[in-house]
Amino acid sequence: MSDRRLHVTVPDIGWVDRLADLADVELTVWDFTMPQPDRHIDLAVRPYTVAATGLELLDPSRIGVIQSQALGYDGVAETLPAGITYCNAVGVHEESTAELAVALLLASQREIDRYARERGEWNRRFTASLIDRRIMLLGYGGIGVEVEKRLDGFGAELVRVASHRREDDRGTIHGDDELPALLPTVDAVVLAVPLSDRTTQLVDDTFLAALPDGAVVVNVSRGKVVDTDAVVRQGGRVRLAADVTDPEPLPADHPLWSTRGVLISPHVGGMSSAMQPRIDAVVRRQVALLLGGFGPEDVVLG
Amino acid sequence: MSDRRLHVTVPDIGWVDRLADLADVELTVWDFTMPQPDRHIDLAVRPYTVAATGLELLDPSRIGVIQSQALGYDGVAETLPAGITYCNAVGVHEESTAELAVALLLASQREIDRYARERGEWNRRFTASLIDRRIMLLGYGGIGVEVEKRLDGFGAELVRVASHRREDDRGTIHGDDELPALLPTVDAVVLAVPLSDRTTQLVDDTFLAALPDGAVVVNVSRGKVVDTDAVVRQGGRVRLAADVTDPEPLPADHPLWSTRGVLISPHVGGMSSAMQPRIDAVVRRQVALLLGGFGPEDVVLG
Repeated sequence: MSDRRLHVTVPDIGWVDRLADLADVELTVWDFTMPQPDRHIDLAVRPYTVAATGLELLDPSRIGVIQSQALGYDGVAETLPAGITYCNAVGVHEESTAELAVALLLASQREIDRYARERGEWNRRFTASLIDRRIMLLGYGGIGVEVEKRLDGFGAELVRVASHRREDDRGTIHGDDELPALLPTVDAVVLAVPLSDRTTQLVDDTFLAALPDGAVVVNVSRGKVVDTDAVVRQGGRVRLAADVTDPEPLPADHPLWSTRGVLISPHVGGMSSAMQPRIDAVVRRQVALLLGGFGPEDVVLG
Repeated sequence: MSDRRLHVTVPDIGWVDRLADLADVELTVWDFTMPQPDRHIDLAVRPYTVAATGLELLDPSRIGVIQSQALGYDGVAETLPAGITYCNAVGVHEESTAELAVALLLASQREIDRYARERGEWNRRFTASLIDRRIMLLGYGGIGVEVEKRLDGFGAELVRVASHRREDDRGTIHGDDELPALLPTVDAVVLAVPLSDRTTQLVDDTFLAALPDGAVVVNVSRGKVVDTDAVVRQGGRVRLAADVTDPEPLPADHPLWSTRGVLISPHVGGMSSAMQPRIDAVVRRQVALLLGGFGPEDVVLG
């Protein structure tokens, strides 16, 4: 089909097995913690969870494209050498992260975390629910849409908010300038915004104070979207169910761990059985594009 | 409108406030633990969670209708004196119980219970998900339908099973004679069957052995549908997320509490903020029917 042959590096040997059927591709293992190989790499798949060498040390004359396994790329622009193309992982984590958002929201409302900790006790109490409640979906990108899909059947009213007001076939998506009016009317807020100047510490004392007693904030976007100290200051009046924190990892002695009404998972939104088939498919698509002489998809830098 | 005037008893003073606007109704408080009032009661609302005096002691000449706040009525047929009409609470708990089923399923798959217990630690691990998985919905009555509605958006394939095979506009509902063939193909089973001779200990050693490694059984129906000892014998190979247990309450020293992969909530499926407006509406409907000279709805006995 093609006289090109691609050199693709993958971060561990499992990848070599899974992609062994790819024609016209030479697969070698490089996990970004070892020195950059001497040979030219057409496509380098970055490791997902392992702390990798800083991108600033890479020699751009020997790498064409870096494929990240993450959706976010905070800090990459500041360190990526000119000449390297950087692609994020679109379609890999959105569903899994949205699933975790709903899992955290439900667990918080129905107090599943309390039952887990009170193992051996039989304390029946009424709890909150999603039924008849108003849930704000703040951020309406890839994750937000997947959260909406999952919340559809729960008998709640969804209040969608994005950066600019617009209408779609489901009704109004509110602009974030309407937050002060909307926050007092909702029982839950699911944060699915990207991190930007506009969203850094968006959930601060003022935001939290506008929410009614017993409301819950679910954060699956980035830790810095929430002012951690402000949540601690709420002392449980407004609850938090978060997969991301600031700082991250959250130190063992941080007061957020023991704040009433706080449930934390350790940034595992994308870390589910849904990930591997989806990131494999992304890399297969990029290989097909490069072999065909096209540029890669989902370029965010370079 | 009517020259009738109803005497309605309610189990606590909160009810009197909430129903104070009802015309042609005299409300008095009786919680079934005090002796039966001397006067005739047209409609007696039974308490929900408080252990009440046995129904066998009631004088049927002075009670017309008992309105239960529960959906299930195990044991009522054996103790209700002839002449009293007994109504269960239809439409009050189904949504809330289905919500808890999905909350337990998600918490178990994404290991929310582990994060709650490991508070202060930051242990990132891949977990299961609902995405791309096959989930069996066993029992397709009021709760089963509500579970289905909620699971629709999660990217799972639903395998519906009821007592008899039939087709509807969503496809096939399998008969329970197909269980041996279906169980090895699913990653999760949500139990939403009524308790009957047919469903008692339905989930036994054979049922569990037919499920693949790592599968999870969610029980929101009745504890006796699952053979508790059989789950303990699985030792975590098949997991359990249950709102109901056998025995119930589960004693503090019962080995099920510490079996790997077991998450238990203390029979709180209906105990959410969704209950009160719905049970109030049921009682209001029954009052309207009785005042109109009609019989009550949702009669299960008498």
